[in-house]
Amino acid sequence: MTRFSRNLLAEWQKLELPLAKANVVVGVSGGADSTALLLALTELMKAEKISLNLLVAHLDHNLRGERSKDDAKWVSKLAARLNHRFVLKRENVALRAQNNNDNLEQSARRARYEFLAKVAHKEKAQIVLTGHTKDDQAETVLLNLLRGSGIDGLAGIEPVRLLNERPSTLLVRPLLRWARRAETQKYCADEGIVARQDEMNFDEAYSRVRVRRQLLPLMETFNGRVVEALARTAWLLRDDANSLTGDGIRLLRTASEKAAEVSGPAGVRTKAAKNKVPALCVEVLATATPALRRRALRNWLAQGRGDLRRLELVHLLAVDGLLAKGRGGRVVELPGGARVLRKGRLLQFLGQPAEGKAGRAGNDSDERSEK
Amino acid sequence: MTRFSRNLLAEWQKLELPLAKANVVVGVSGGADSTALLLALTELMKAEKISLNLLVAHLDHNLRGERSKDDAKWVSKLAARLNHRFVLKRENVALRAQNNNDNLEQSARRARYEFLAKVAHKEKAQIVLTGHTKDDQAETVLLNLLRGSGIDGLAGIEPVRLLNERPSTLLVRPLLRWARRAETQKYCADEGIVARQDEMNFDEAYSRVRVRRQLLPLMETFNGRVVEALARTAWLLRDDANSLTGDGIRLLRTASEKAAEVSGPAGVRTKAAKNKVPALCVEVLATATPALRRRALRNWLAQGRGDLRRLELVHLLAVDGLLAKGRGGRVVELPGGARVLRKGRLLQFLGQPAEGKAGRAGNDSDERSEK
Repeated sequence: MTRFSRNLLAEWQKLELPLAKANVVVGVSGGADSTALLLALTELMKAEKISLNLLVAHLDHNLRGERSKDDAKWVSKLAARLNHRFVLKRENVALRAQNNNDNLEQSARRARYEFLAKVAHKEKAQIVLTGHTKDDQAETVLLNLLRGSGIDGLAGIEPVRLLNERPSTLLVRPLLRWARRAETQKYCADEGIVARQDEMNFDEAYSRVRVRRQLLPLMETFNGRVVEALARTAWLLRDDANSLTGDGIRLLRTASEKAAEVSGPAGVRTKAAKNKVPALCVEVLATATPALRRRALRNWLAQGRGDLRRLELVHLLAVDGLLAKGRGGRVVELPGGARVLRKGRLLQFLGQPAEGKAGRAGNDSDERSEK
Repeated sequence: MTRFSRNLLAEWQKLELPLAKANVVVGVSGGADSTALLLALTELMKAEKISLNLLVAHLDHNLRGERSKDDAKWVSKLAARLNHRFVLKRENVALRAQNNNDNLEQSARRARYEFLAKVAHKEKAQIVLTGHTKDDQAETVLLNLLRGSGIDGLAGIEPVRLLNERPSTLLVRPLLRWARRAETQKYCADEGIVARQDEMNFDEAYSRVRVRRQLLPLMETFNGRVVEALARTAWLLRDDANSLTGDGIRLLRTASEKAAEVSGPAGVRTKAAKNKVPALCVEVLATATPALRRRALRNWLAQGRGDLRRLELVHLLAVDGLLAKGRGGRVVELPGGARVLRKGRLLQFLGQPAEGKAGRAGNDSDERSEK
């Protein structure tokens, strides 16, 4: 067995993934990373280290005409040669981006994960694999840093996360924590495979490409192991972020339970209760740390509004400001029209005012967002 | 009043610093940042917005011969002209660095803060001020990122922290959260003051200078407001880090209280108790999140060893590994010779073995550190 596939097996065990009887979908673009992943999985299956029901999935993004089709054919042939089943979908990602007013990279990513989720569902797959490496991790951390992300962005790509709730499918990146891109390339070459080159990997119009080709090389002049350093930081921050997220959820629960006590049975019939968003107890929140309070409020607002779209830090801080002394009776209006009211010891989510709803028909509600 | 000094006053109030009757030491190098801070404070005092007993402190690092002396004279004259008291110390920082086998930047920083702490003590100062700006914050975040820091490093410079325990002196950076370096320069220029230029600010042998002159400009081609973005990230992470630190300390307390219950009065006479480092209860730690567990263990090891010198993540993870099932009777040895033992439901800090102490006389104990 090669060192690369032994490393993959070690990570597979660390991640406590099943060694047998799992339906697994592997996303393969034809680039060196996902090709190396597929080759190493095949090696482990042949050596009877793992026994998976494996399906190779390829999305043709249709961004580069004939070359896109050639990539798809190439992956299809590789899968056939390795004795794996293969599924292909062609999608016009450029059109999708245009329709959704989205950028091309984001649109391509969404199309890929939707495709993988659909295939996984049909296949009753427990696991979906992608070939992200440590280099992808470092790039993601930097792209998020350039945006001024908080801890969740800086924690980068998750090695394992839930892709679907039901049936529960895991999205796993088994190369993320150990493999460098140079290693996937070398492994492909050693196996006699010439992986496909995505020309977009050289188009410096994409921020990710510039991070890879300009920013990281400059950072390497400070620390030759900066990719490792960034991956380590991401890993530490991921644990920190998970800890804070859990505690934020618990704080939210406590604050709403205490609010129910405070308001008593009369409180149940308030407008807030009608909206099914519980009121929160001010003291419980005010005595928590700002970090946990912001997380609790963020989750609460997501419940009330249905999502977090257009909710920025400034709005969160405005709601947080209602917890200070002497803010009884104050209201904060959120983008989209929902409002939060401080009433004595309670914080109430009011939803959109009725007149606001009527008045905004046909309007661009973006105009209403607080800055 | 100028906009700059109004901004300073607003931040002063946000930080809840005293508006009167405080003894305040300002560290002034003569560069634009600290000079702007001094000028703005003077403006606020003249306008009777604040009333402070102010002392200007300057450390001559003696790194640039006559130029260093000229800087000191310049600050002394400025202080006199503004009617402030002035204190100067000259220290051979290069020699200090050599003696301590330290790098020059670190040595200079240590010398500065020691000097400020001494002056503050003598002066019975409640507050020590330095002129760090948002640009310093961004540079610090990046320098720590380049090293692969965890959240505490990425949270950067603290706007307020304790400088001394007794008497309790605050170290405050009242420009950090709002002022850009360009603003301090402009404000000095507007006030007709030509601040001193530190030639070391242009010496690209220093990482900080290269971050300022190479890395940040490249990052600005991705996001023109990247300094603001980094400062915002630092601010969010600071709150997160503080929350995790507090919870880590609470977890450590719970784990040692529970261990005392588990071991009963007999446990008091163990070697661990003799060392005054309490044993920890394995279950309490094992059910906490990895983020909090690592923090609790780190604090516990710092107590046991006296400091965290040469303790790396790999050691912390080895101790953490003792919490897993079936690790009873296992020992982890730490750099310097102290050991941690898992014994049933307890984790015990054993200190250095007696033979180890004898055997290591004159040896380089670095050789003993686990990698």
